[in-house]
Amino acid sequence: MLTVCVAPADPPLIVESVRAAGGEVVAHPDRARALVWTDPRPEGMREYLTPGVRWVQLPSAGVENWTRAGLVDSTRLWCSAAGAYAPQVAEHALALLLAGVHRLPAAARSPTWRRYQPGTLRGSTVAVVGAGGIGRAVVPGLRALGAGVLAVNRSGEPVEGAAETVPFEGLAGVWRRADHVILAAPATPLTHRMVGRDELRALGPQGWLVNVARGELVDTGALLAALRAGEIGGAALDVTDPEPLPDGHGLWSEPNVLITSHSANPQARLDESLAERVRENVSRYLRGEPLLGLIDLARGY
Amino acid sequence: MLTVCVAPADPPLIVESVRAAGGEVVAHPDRARALVWTDPRPEGMREYLTPGVRWVQLPSAGVENWTRAGLVDSTRLWCSAAGAYAPQVAEHALALLLAGVHRLPAAARSPTWRRYQPGTLRGSTVAVVGAGGIGRAVVPGLRALGAGVLAVNRSGEPVEGAAETVPFEGLAGVWRRADHVILAAPATPLTHRMVGRDELRALGPQGWLVNVARGELVDTGALLAALRAGEIGGAALDVTDPEPLPDGHGLWSEPNVLITSHSANPQARLDESLAERVRENVSRYLRGEPLLGLIDLARGY
Repeated sequence: MLTVCVAPADPPLIVESVRAAGGEVVAHPDRARALVWTDPRPEGMREYLTPGVRWVQLPSAGVENWTRAGLVDSTRLWCSAAGAYAPQVAEHALALLLAGVHRLPAAARSPTWRRYQPGTLRGSTVAVVGAGGIGRAVVPGLRALGAGVLAVNRSGEPVEGAAETVPFEGLAGVWRRADHVILAAPATPLTHRMVGRDELRALGPQGWLVNVARGELVDTGALLAALRAGEIGGAALDVTDPEPLPDGHGLWSEPNVLITSHSANPQARLDESLAERVRENVSRYLRGEPLLGLIDLARGY
Repeated sequence: MLTVCVAPADPPLIVESVRAAGGEVVAHPDRARALVWTDPRPEGMREYLTPGVRWVQLPSAGVENWTRAGLVDSTRLWCSAAGAYAPQVAEHALALLLAGVHRLPAAARSPTWRRYQPGTLRGSTVAVVGAGGIGRAVVPGLRALGAGVLAVNRSGEPVEGAAETVPFEGLAGVWRRADHVILAAPATPLTHRMVGRDELRALGPQGWLVNVARGELVDTGALLAALRAGEIGGAALDVTDPEPLPDGHGLWSEPNVLITSHSANPQARLDESLAERVRENVSRYLRGEPLLGLIDLARGY
C-alpha cells in the first residue's frame, strides 16, 4: 500500500489516477508516504515534506523552482513530470516553426491582400537542442515534412530519427549548420543564456529560433538586437525572459516575432497529462520499478 | 526529337529543363511540336497554338482559366502542372491548420501577454477533401502528428495513409465526423461553393477550415456568417472568393481568420517546381510514356 497526499489542491483527475493505480489518497501529510504536488510554484511545500514522505511527484517538466528553493535533496526521491507534456509541447513547437517559415505572423497582422514568399522545411536542417521528451517528440513531425534533424543532447548518444546527434560541447558549430533551431533544453547553469548574439548571427538571416523550453536560455537583449539588425529570420517564443514579457517590451513590436505567452502546454490539458503521469508512477512505485522523471541531483533536472 | 516553344516568357530554368530532357528549344511556335506556357494567365496563347503543336504543358495545377477560355480541346494533348507544387502547398496547409488549432492568429495580433488554450491535432480526425497531389502530400505530416485522416476523392479508392477514404458523394457525412477540414480539391462545377452554412455548422465550433485549393469552393457569405455566429473554430485561407479579397471585407477583421493571400505556392519556388515537371514530361513524351497531369476533358482537370 502507498499512501499519497495530493496538495496543495486535489483535482479529481489526479486523485482518481492515484486510486486507479492502487494508491490510497490521504488528506494529511503526516500519514503520507508520497506527495503529489499540483501547483506550478513551490510556495507552501515545506509543511508537506514530513519525514514519512519518501517520494515527491512534481507537476512540471522543469524543476528549477524547486531546486532553487533548496527543496530537492537526497533525503527522498523527487520526480519531475518531464515527458508528460512532451507531445503537446512538441506539436506547438512545430506549429511555431512552420508559422515562422511560412510567414504567418505577417499574414495574421495584415489587413490587406499581399503576397508572401514562404520558405519550406523540405530539405532544411533543423537543430533540436535538448533531446528530452519534447525534443524527441518533435523529430517525427520534422521528418515527415522532409527536414533533417540535428539533435543536441548531453551525451551525444544518437537520438532516434535524427540524422546526427551532437553532444552539448559541440553546440557552437551547430548554429552555422542549422537552418532553424528549436530550443527544448532544461534550464541549468550550462544552458543559462546559451543563445547570444554570436549564436544568432551564425544562425543567419533566414533562420528561425523557436523556444518552447525556458526564456532564460536566450539573452533577450541579444535576440532583440539580432532581430533589429536582420541577422535572423525571426523568433517564435512560447517562453521569454523576463516572463511574463512586460507591455511595451521591444519584442512585442518586432514584425518577425511570434509570442504565445507560455501556452504550449495549456491548462486544459495539464491535469489530464499529469494524471496520466501520476497513475504511471504510482503503479511503478508499487511494483518497485524505476520512476519516470526521477531527478538526478548531480545534473539538477 | 521534340521541338519545344517556351512562351510567353522563357525563364532559363525552364529552357534548361527542356534541353536536359532531350528536347530542342525553338523560338517560334511554327516550328514547335510542344508548347510550354509559363504565364499563369491564358491571354495571348492562341497565336502560339499552331497546327503543329501537339502537346501543351500549362504552368499551374488548376486549369480553369484555360478551360473557361475554351482553349483546352481534344485536338491536342494538354497537361496541367497538378502535383508539381504539391509538397510545398501541403506543407503550407499543415502550417495553416496547426496555426489555427494552436491559436497563433490571436497570439500574432496580441501586443500583451495572455494565456491561450491551444488545441491539439493528436487524436483528432482531419478530413482532406480532394486527394490529388496536395491532398496525398499532406497525409504523412498529419499522421506524424497523431491525427487520423479521412480522405475524400472522386473514386473512393483508398488513399495511402488515410484511415478511411470516402467518395465525393459521401462528403455530406464527413463534415460532422471531422474535427477539421482541409480543402485541396480542384475547381469544377461539382465543387463550386460546396462549403456552405450547413457544412460549416456540421464542422462545429472547434473546427478549423483550411483552404489551399480555390476560393470558389467556399460560399464566402456563409463562411462569414458561420464565423460571426461562432459556428466554427476558424478559417485559414490561402485562397478566397473574391480574390484578391478587397480591403475592408469582413473576413479581414474576423479574429479567427488567417489569410495568406494565395502564397502557398510562392513565386520563388514556382520556376523550380515547374522546371522539374517540364523535364519529367519532356522525357516521358520522348520515351512515349504517359504524361503527368494529362487533362481529362470529361472531368475538366
